[in-house]
Amino acid sequence: MANSFHPPVRTLMGPGPSDVNPRVLEAMSRPTIGHLDPAFIGLMDELKALMQYAFKTENRLTLPISAPGSAGMEACFVNLVEPGDKVIVCQNGVFGGRMKENVERCGGQAIMVQDDWGRAVSLEKVEQALLENKDAKVLAFVHAETSTGALSDAQKLCKLAQAHNCLTIVDAVTSLGGVEVDVDGWGIDAIYSGTQKCLSCTPGLSPVSFSEKAVHAISNRKSKVQSWFLDMNLVMGYWGEGAKRAYHHTAPINALYCLHEALVILEEEGLERAWARHAMNHQALAAGIEAMGLSFVVPSTERLPQLNAVSVPEGVDEALVRKSLLDNYSLEIGAGLGALAGKVWRIGLMGFAANSKNVLMCLGALEATLSHIGADIKKGVAVEAAQAQYLSE
Amino acid sequence: MANSFHPPVRTLMGPGPSDVNPRVLEAMSRPTIGHLDPAFIGLMDELKALMQYAFKTENRLTLPISAPGSAGMEACFVNLVEPGDKVIVCQNGVFGGRMKENVERCGGQAIMVQDDWGRAVSLEKVEQALLENKDAKVLAFVHAETSTGALSDAQKLCKLAQAHNCLTIVDAVTSLGGVEVDVDGWGIDAIYSGTQKCLSCTPGLSPVSFSEKAVHAISNRKSKVQSWFLDMNLVMGYWGEGAKRAYHHTAPINALYCLHEALVILEEEGLERAWARHAMNHQALAAGIEAMGLSFVVPSTERLPQLNAVSVPEGVDEALVRKSLLDNYSLEIGAGLGALAGKVWRIGLMGFAANSKNVLMCLGALEATLSHIGADIKKGVAVEAAQAQYLSE
Repeated sequence: MANSFHPPVRTLMGPGPSDVNPRVLEAMSRPTIGHLDPAFIGLMDELKALMQYAFKTENRLTLPISAPGSAGMEACFVNLVEPGDKVIVCQNGVFGGRMKENVERCGGQAIMVQDDWGRAVSLEKVEQALLENKDAKVLAFVHAETSTGALSDAQKLCKLAQAHNCLTIVDAVTSLGGVEVDVDGWGIDAIYSGTQKCLSCTPGLSPVSFSEKAVHAISNRKSKVQSWFLDMNLVMGYWGEGAKRAYHHTAPINALYCLHEALVILEEEGLERAWARHAMNHQALAAGIEAMGLSFVVPSTERLPQLNAVSVPEGVDEALVRKSLLDNYSLEIGAGLGALAGKVWRIGLMGFAANSKNVLMCLGALEATLSHIGADIKKGVAVEAAQAQYLSE
Repeated sequence: MANSFHPPVRTLMGPGPSDVNPRVLEAMSRPTIGHLDPAFIGLMDELKALMQYAFKTENRLTLPISAPGSAGMEACFVNLVEPGDKVIVCQNGVFGGRMKENVERCGGQAIMVQDDWGRAVSLEKVEQALLENKDAKVLAFVHAETSTGALSDAQKLCKLAQAHNCLTIVDAVTSLGGVEVDVDGWGIDAIYSGTQKCLSCTPGLSPVSFSEKAVHAISNRKSKVQSWFLDMNLVMGYWGEGAKRAYHHTAPINALYCLHEALVILEEEGLERAWARHAMNHQALAAGIEAMGLSFVVPSTERLPQLNAVSVPEGVDEALVRKSLLDNYSLEIGAGLGALAGKVWRIGLMGFAANSKNVLMCLGALEATLSHIGADIKKGVAVEAAQAQYLSE
């Protein structure tokens, strides 16, 4: 006989899920109602408005996909890519590779623009690819690469795409709520995010938004969308405005309570203040990390505040350090992924986890652990450097 | 500025979501942990064993899809159907039609076997279709049609499929936990369910299970699965046994706590006792419904205990009755769907909601409401008939 499961209480400073605000957890356990209940319809309308706020958009087709970020990615590709379509895909980490998989599984042709892992997407290479592929339909890129901590210039990439008459698909899984995302200002056509990063919600949903241009393309496809579950032509009927809501699938009610509460908290704080908080805590963490003698993978001008990829010092067993942090401090930081596996730690400062308590605790725990195993670091300076950084703000 | 959302407290006796046990809601709000946390790996192993218990199977590939039942359906079809494959699809309600959509979006050919809405799938017609389509690869049918309340004979349908060398895909969204489902005993090859029906969990996940024969077919496909998110070849790597878990997508941690708790409750009660409880409460509800002079859509021998489709009496505005039940008793019952829209109410007795308190309250509220609008029913007998039925058990 199995027993009830009682999870340990962690501090989540990996690549996500991030620490969840207790308000959000409490919201999740409120009484379940039907997905066609009049009260639920009101919730859907509010959720839509809150997501429009977070994405900075007036796009009518803004909604949460009832599945994690990977399904949000797939929703963008299966709706916008038809067999034979050419898609320019930028890869500077794991998730560009997943985009390529998506394009190919839609019967599209992926034109890859490769950049070093840990660097932003190169505008020059993208422009070159656009010039060489005048028939490309879509430019797809990752705004904030969770596998490396690199931030790309979404505004300029969108501008290039527009100049070449391309639609854009933007991965904002890790960026939304942590750094500026301006869907309407930048003219993004399709964007997807996740709930378990800077929104500090539990994992399982993917907020997405589609521009009018994207909606036009979806409504005028030559072939049916290959996924019934993710077909926006059908999902629109359920999340659409005013009109009678047509049943599509059963919405994940309690997960939506949770996202709603997380977005209410974001609105209370304000987008700009949330971005500033992420930046400030990142500066403090970075000051401590560098004072210890450790270094970042990503150059400072291309660095995400919410995802810090730190190089593992020579001779250090990175998995042992993570295990020790988890066992001794109940602190989770992330391992490297793909080409960076074994080479970096990924320290997340996402949403509710982006606070000074976590920064100081993480620096202290990391220093103690590295000292204990005899790693070559500078001792007794990290916490002070972080504090100095906070005081200078 | 949006405020926190506080849902009304409903009694959920529609087609799902059903009433959720407070233990399950509480489990959902436990602290989030990482999806690669050692403690989470333990939870995954327990969840798998509990789902194997619920499905009565030893299938290694038994796991919860991180999305609702519709995605579980899609997972079965995209993995087992390749372009050009012939699939015999039984339709006796809404969900057979959705199966057809899935087959066609996979590039397969759907051979439809049509039955009246409200009746079980005809074994004779299926056998005929199998004889006429010796090259069919899959037989797909809905075990418990949520849109009509009809129960089909899954055991005999599977036997027919096996005799004709066909794989089976079975929709058990509404059957699992409410009536017998015996995956190994009946030789089902692919089965999907939902969490929000007789498991009385919140909506959002889809337990699935694949036989060794199905796994062999998936591993030896000629083409890649069109969905990256639902590709079992990849998902297996994350949910697989013993071996190193390969990151695929971020699991919906808290939703999995919730499913775990719901399955722990099911195991505590025992499958056979849960089925008997559903049957007993259905008998009592049916006695009351029929005493009132109302009638069922489905003949008693083909009727699901957990989903009761009751014909709307002549001249009664069915939507008005549902609104009145919701407004006056905070009681949700379901409307008709598809061909039965406007003609029936669907009264669910699913999982935690299948209890005598709900049965008596529902009969009382329905009688009061129908009396109030002057419908031609027999008054003052429904509750007594239900009580007599309980006493006769």
